Amino acid sequence: MRPVYLDNNAATRADPEVVAAMLPFFSDQFGNASSSHAFGSEVAGAIRQARKSLQALLGAAFDHEIVLTSGGTESDNTAILSALETQSGRDEIVTTAVEHPAILSLVEYLRDRRGLTAHLIGVDAAGCLDLEAYKRALGPRTAIASVMWANNETGTLFPVPELAKLAHEAGALFHTDAVQAVGKIAIDLKSADVDMLSLSGHKLHGPKGIGALYVRKGTPFAPLLRGGPQERRRRGGTENVPAIIGLGKAAELAGQHLADEQGRVCALRDRLEQGIIQSIGRCAVLGDPEHRLPNTANIAFQHLEGEPIVMRLNQVGIAASLGSACASGSMEPSHVLRAMNVPPDLLRGAVRFSLSRDTTEDDIKRVLQVLPDIVGRLRETSPAWLQHHPSSSADPLRSTELT
Amino acid sequence: MRPVYLDNNAATRADPEVVAAMLPFFSDQFGNASSSHAFGSEVAGAIRQARKSLQALLGAAFDHEIVLTSGGTESDNTAILSALETQSGRDEIVTTAVEHPAILSLVEYLRDRRGLTAHLIGVDAAGCLDLEAYKRALGPRTAIASVMWANNETGTLFPVPELAKLAHEAGALFHTDAVQAVGKIAIDLKSADVDMLSLSGHKLHGPKGIGALYVRKGTPFAPLLRGGPQERRRRGGTENVPAIIGLGKAAELAGQHLADEQGRVCALRDRLEQGIIQSIGRCAVLGDPEHRLPNTANIAFQHLEGEPIVMRLNQVGIAASLGSACASGSMEPSHVLRAMNVPPDLLRGAVRFSLSRDTTEDDIKRVLQVLPDIVGRLRETSPAWLQHHPSSSADPLRSTELT
Repeated sequence: MRPVYLDNNAATRADPEVVAAMLPFFSDQFGNASSSHAFGSEVAGAIRQARKSLQALLGAAFDHEIVLTSGGTESDNTAILSALETQSGRDEIVTTAVEHPAILSLVEYLRDRRGLTAHLIGVDAAGCLDLEAYKRALGPRTAIASVMWANNETGTLFPVPELAKLAHEAGALFHTDAVQAVGKIAIDLKSADVDMLSLSGHKLHGPKGIGALYVRKGTPFAPLLRGGPQERRRRGGTENVPAIIGLGKAAELAGQHLADEQGRVCALRDRLEQGIIQSIGRCAVLGDPEHRLPNTANIAFQHLEGEPIVMRLNQVGIAASLGSACASGSMEPSHVLRAMNVPPDLLRGAVRFSLSRDTTEDDIKRVLQVLPDIVGRLRETSPAWLQHHPSSSADPLRSTELT
Repeated sequence: MRPVYLDNNAATRADPEVVAAMLPFFSDQFGNASSSHAFGSEVAGAIRQARKSLQALLGAAFDHEIVLTSGGTESDNTAILSALETQSGRDEIVTTAVEHPAILSLVEYLRDRRGLTAHLIGVDAAGCLDLEAYKRALGPRTAIASVMWANNETGTLFPVPELAKLAHEAGALFHTDAVQAVGKIAIDLKSADVDMLSLSGHKLHGPKGIGALYVRKGTPFAPLLRGGPQERRRRGGTENVPAIIGLGKAAELAGQHLADEQGRVCALRDRLEQGIIQSIGRCAVLGDPEHRLPNTANIAFQHLEGEPIVMRLNQVGIAASLGSACASGSMEPSHVLRAMNVPPDLLRGAVRFSLSRDTTEDDIKRVLQVLPDIVGRLRETSPAWLQHHPSSSADPLRSTELT
């Protein structure tokens, strides 16, 4: 049976068109883009085209605002460190408690080892930012505010244009980790006045090992990787030509598929959520019901642990995850769900299903076929469940919906 | 006519076997290696195998000494910054005047902006390190000594095991940028006691955008990219699975081809050099005649500029370069050749031919067929040449060899 892949927020399948676009650049047009001979100049032209595709997807004013990097983590790290280096007299950072580790672990390191003051703004039960606390934290010492466009675990969207405006009013730079947003929702950097934005290839059906940092023209900038003059001296290192070409093609395709993402994919996601709630019960959809990525469903099953659910789904050929791939293997409940104050009976029982344009109706049917039984059997042996439901059978059809 | 590619020190052709090994990991086994489901665990196993291939090529004691990065520049930057962060009380660096920009531009930045004391050790006319100056520069404040294994422009080899020993006697760490050496000469980290070593995929017929930093077990280390727990918390960011698999295959093939590199390739390089000297004259082979990479020929043509030579070679389908791809487009003579005190009449006339296992006898014949005419015609219109040889024709066969 065809495996069902619902972990697209961890990694998407590279589109076959993306791979086809990359292929000639491994063994035929394999020159160094910085070389002056024909092997080099051919690939330099292809890179320009890829940069233009990214520019179009983001609605950026100039193609040279795109700095190509090795991925989302490098982009995020570069943005934060660049701001701290260029914003002299400003040694504070404002970010959120629910950022990706590519922001949080750097910020915690800078706080603990370099004396940076870091404001980690909290969120409410739906994962939405505490806007008042954000405003209070911004001030004359803020070098940069960095807020993700969409949360990777719950899909909750943040009001980036408004947050950028507030940061600018405090004289600070604004960066957004848009790794989960680009390709899933429309981004227009003409209307959203962000200074820097991170994206990653493998989250939008492009290759791994490539990403970009958008740096608005005029934004003060200090490189993280120093070497040759590549990327207008903003990122040293031989250009990763095949991956850049792949990212360009992925950006082009993402633009074409945006409507599908917001229409068909979102409808499948909603069907999955409603099906689970109806057939299983005593579970909760986490995240903001309204302002959410169209592809992400994070569902917490009361009195269960997410890990055995994910394992049993895996045994029947369905890939889902506990939240973030980066935290898998850790026994700690997700920092995102803790920040949302998810109640203790749900906190450890969250499973993330993340769809993509590859997801079919049959995929969703398959999950709805097997999941009630998996949850039911696990509840039969869950001490927490049995303690709260001593008389009720774990039969999902007889359990009631969580209020 | 088949193009002749003699710019392998800038980028090599990815071996078709490398590309074949990578292909399944784009659109079939596309999971995130950190994911706990089958899509993830499959690729985690493949990554382990690739790491072991790198371990074998380097003669490293443990596979976990290999930290996978986005390439040589990231590896070099990481090594330097890590040493400065972990070697408290030591704020000096000892390196050479002929390093790659991935070392030099970082060191210059740290010196100019962070008050680091940097000792840039000079070289002699053959590009060999001034060993006495190196010894004098090492001291109780040296955090790290970083010396390339082989120079990218001339191929000159440095006595890395000896240099590492001297650095350790001063209590400093030792790093080597071995980007140009790995795959071309035998490396054995059991006998060479280096603490860190950088390598890059696309210099050994692997893909671009991937590299590694070898970090000897027990070496104090601070990550450059902070994010998730990948690479045993030494390098955050989703693993670049296809490129890692490709790098592993490239390492495996490089081991198999080492004898070819030292035998057939070296013989072709020697034939190219001898042919040029005999048929053109008034040119000099730069670099150490004895301790040199087997694939690299850097030849300076008296009273000429290298750029038009490279351009005309390009017009007839032959790719060579001025030195380093990273410096191409700049009008400055190479920092390497300046450090070697190459005489003014040769300094701007250097052309680098770098061969690989893809190079054939016909490739060399082709260069020897067209180059005398190219050089001869350029000399006919070179004011410097005509000033020194007013009566002599520029006919290459009549010009005499440079003493």
